[in-house]
Amino acid sequence: MPRTAETASFKFNHTMLRVKDPKVSLQFYTEVLGMELLSEKPFSDFTLYFLAFNHDGRELTAEEKEHSRFSREGVLELTHNHGTESDPNFAGYASGNADPGRGFGHIAITVEDVDKACERFETLGVAFKKRPTDGKMRHIAFILDPDGYWIEIVPGRLTL
Amino acid sequence: MPRTAETASFKFNHTMLRVKDPKVSLQFYTEVLGMELLSEKPFSDFTLYFLAFNHDGRELTAEEKEHSRFSREGVLELTHNHGTESDPNFAGYASGNADPGRGFGHIAITVEDVDKACERFETLGVAFKKRPTDGKMRHIAFILDPDGYWIEIVPGRLTL
Repeated sequence: MPRTAETASFKFNHTMLRVKDPKVSLQFYTEVLGMELLSEKPFSDFTLYFLAFNHDGRELTAEEKEHSRFSREGVLELTHNHGTESDPNFAGYASGNADPGRGFGHIAITVEDVDKACERFETLGVAFKKRPTDGKMRHIAFILDPDGYWIEIVPGRLTL
Repeated sequence: MPRTAETASFKFNHTMLRVKDPKVSLQFYTEVLGMELLSEKPFSDFTLYFLAFNHDGRELTAEEKEHSRFSREGVLELTHNHGTESDPNFAGYASGNADPGRGFGHIAITVEDVDKACERFETLGVAFKKRPTDGKMRHIAFILDPDGYWIEIVPGRLTL
């Protein structure tokens, strides 16, 4: 389908999730999943963290990170409302996959080898919603991020 | 940050949202936002729709669409649980931005000219959560998709 002139510049830039504790979440998204922190924007009540996979194979300059934050696709924005990490009354965020609050489903990461990726997730102590060996869909898995959001692990060359 | 070998192949492939009525949602995401339907996967109880912006400037082959569905970033997966579109008792999906069910925030589309994009959205009858002229952040807007999910409209060269 040809894109109209009016939408020719549009890109699906980012997806935003609220997180309880940025220390825990940043460790998960950078160390477990391998994303890079592009930028951190503190405001009085909240801080925004922008992450993405670096596909360039080289270190990005601070300027490139700042620019790519709004110019590329595949960016993840994590919102931390200050205080949730130490508030005993904070009930946690809804993953979107249970009532009440069903709607949002998951984000998905493609990987070259799902089984190998999942073995590593096991070693790292990552929580699974569905291991590759669970259920019928043996070629995919679902892990949980620190807030319980579902992350689908998909082979890059899947034919569903 | 250099990516480890174990995560070098990882990509942030897609974000999944549940939608009440695929006819209405597909019209919105293709005609209003300009995404392309890459593939439609019907199952017995639900159907999955994969969409993305075509940045190639040419028509993709069916094979390319099928492949790009899991090999690129910036894909949107819409899940339609059959029957919701005509069920009078279906209450609609949570956007993630109100309790109960707060957690997921929004997806974001970068555009070249936010004001121009928003004028067009107005003409098309799109619902706004925040017009560029509302509030303090004059350079961004939030529109609502047919299910009430928030979509941030961001300039591609924003410096926040």
